[in-house]
Amino acid sequence: MSFVYKADPARGLIWQRAFAERRPDLPFHLWPETGDPAKVRFLCAWMPPEDIPGTFPNLEILFSVGAGVDQLPLDSLPPGLPVVRMIEDGLTQGMVEYCLAAVLALHRDLPLYRQRQAAGLWQPEPVRLARGRSVGVMGLGVLGQAVLAALRPLGFRLHGWNRSPRAIEGVTVHRRLDDMLPEVEILVCLLPLTEATRGILDARLLARLPPGACLVNTGRGGHLVEADLLAALDSGHLAAAVLDVAEPEPLPPGHPFWTHPRIWLTPHIASMTQPETAVEAVLANLERHARGEALLGLVERGRGY
Amino acid sequence: MSFVYKADPARGLIWQRAFAERRPDLPFHLWPETGDPAKVRFLCAWMPPEDIPGTFPNLEILFSVGAGVDQLPLDSLPPGLPVVRMIEDGLTQGMVEYCLAAVLALHRDLPLYRQRQAAGLWQPEPVRLARGRSVGVMGLGVLGQAVLAALRPLGFRLHGWNRSPRAIEGVTVHRRLDDMLPEVEILVCLLPLTEATRGILDARLLARLPPGACLVNTGRGGHLVEADLLAALDSGHLAAAVLDVAEPEPLPPGHPFWTHPRIWLTPHIASMTQPETAVEAVLANLERHARGEALLGLVERGRGY
Repeated sequence: MSFVYKADPARGLIWQRAFAERRPDLPFHLWPETGDPAKVRFLCAWMPPEDIPGTFPNLEILFSVGAGVDQLPLDSLPPGLPVVRMIEDGLTQGMVEYCLAAVLALHRDLPLYRQRQAAGLWQPEPVRLARGRSVGVMGLGVLGQAVLAALRPLGFRLHGWNRSPRAIEGVTVHRRLDDMLPEVEILVCLLPLTEATRGILDARLLARLPPGACLVNTGRGGHLVEADLLAALDSGHLAAAVLDVAEPEPLPPGHPFWTHPRIWLTPHIASMTQPETAVEAVLANLERHARGEALLGLVERGRGY
Repeated sequence: MSFVYKADPARGLIWQRAFAERRPDLPFHLWPETGDPAKVRFLCAWMPPEDIPGTFPNLEILFSVGAGVDQLPLDSLPPGLPVVRMIEDGLTQGMVEYCLAAVLALHRDLPLYRQRQAAGLWQPEPVRLARGRSVGVMGLGVLGQAVLAALRPLGFRLHGWNRSPRAIEGVTVHRRLDDMLPEVEILVCLLPLTEATRGILDARLLARLPPGACLVNTGRGGHLVEADLLAALDSGHLAAAVLDVAEPEPLPPGHPFWTHPRIWLTPHIASMTQPETAVEAVLANLERHARGEALLGLVERGRGY
């Protein structure tokens, strides 16, 4: 019985050390080294090998090294193989801090003031307080709930939308996305990318936001219809957008997002799996598995996350 | 007995309505209207009239409409006249939200990524979490303490420095500024401007910060030695600065701060007195005064705040 790690090798060394210390009984291999492939029961990967049954005939669990599993060919993976998303505190915390930075930058008009600075303009706008500003989060999983919990003490009026309804203290949770959008001045997309959510940030959705609204996309580039965002910004309906994701990544040279003064672009750095805490999350899931308990972050293939 | 308001007239209308409702017994005048000057006991102003004894011979309290009193000629005001700084929840909250926006933007390298975006570079840096980042606040009055309290749940390692030492939970309070500086990656200046603090953000102070540190100045422009900041940025010792204040304001045309890619400049909008909450703070102080109690925010002329 062994464990294979197939992702960033530098981070893999941290996993290797943790396994050596915490699970000396479970041989750990850093891809492309695998030991006897027939003994490999657990694989943690960004992208698994193409032919999983041919490579690791006895694989029991596939762990994604990232929070999303949209990079995985879910339909062509062995049907019975459990696939587990990464849920770990370091990844959550990074997302919370990025979303807070983005929401506060938009709340305090920093894109506007950056433009005015470039134009040599000292021109103050009235200060609005968080308690008079509404923020809405699409996607109320572990990340969405953590972001809302961090926004709450600042006093923002909070809204949320999720496929399956949830009750969250201090948050107005909407069953229908269309009901939430007119209430929301800063919209944060934290959805998983699935066939149901691809292209969800489109002209129709953006038009339902109130004039002057802002967008934060830390989901996936595939959520956003790029031309619709540009049109909404250029018509003045949207004030600004902070985007951490694109499709494809890197964003191609010459793409209009590079130079748009009201688009702030970061290179998919909102959050990264932190090896120190991620390995703990996987070790805990391995223990759950050994005890026959449900795995945390188990993907439902049908819904795609 | 009457009250005169001498500041922004549009905001004055909000004060007028609140006084009419809450203190119908106390006539309220919007400058330049004053009623009988001999009856004026209370003045709330950004800048009082030059000759106070000649204008309002029976003035009992001068309220500053702002948090700072550095705009007032403290030495030439009538010696016995109590001067009161503005301490009000709306002003505090605005400062908290701005400082949080600035600290998080610096923490998440947004100035760096804005430069890379402009250069067409998709180049991620490792994600650092707040729990591995230290923030230090100069000035631990009402504003500094509120900013630290808002930063604390995010996990930042917090430091503070103040002329008179204070104990604040979760914050390492330093008696000597020189002891704090090497510990601090993001330094926030929230000091009052006095003869003792003018020019405090100078080459000597900046050199004691660790390489790659960042500065937020929401105090006064007079705290900063501008040439020293430029030198520290251009040598690479400092990574970036967020400045809400300048001297003079507006920042003069052609000033190098306008175009420096690692200086984010806002036009003194970190916080503004919110008339709705400010009038409550002044009404409460008037009640304290009537009961013979100490006024909240009473300025000590000798120390300058």
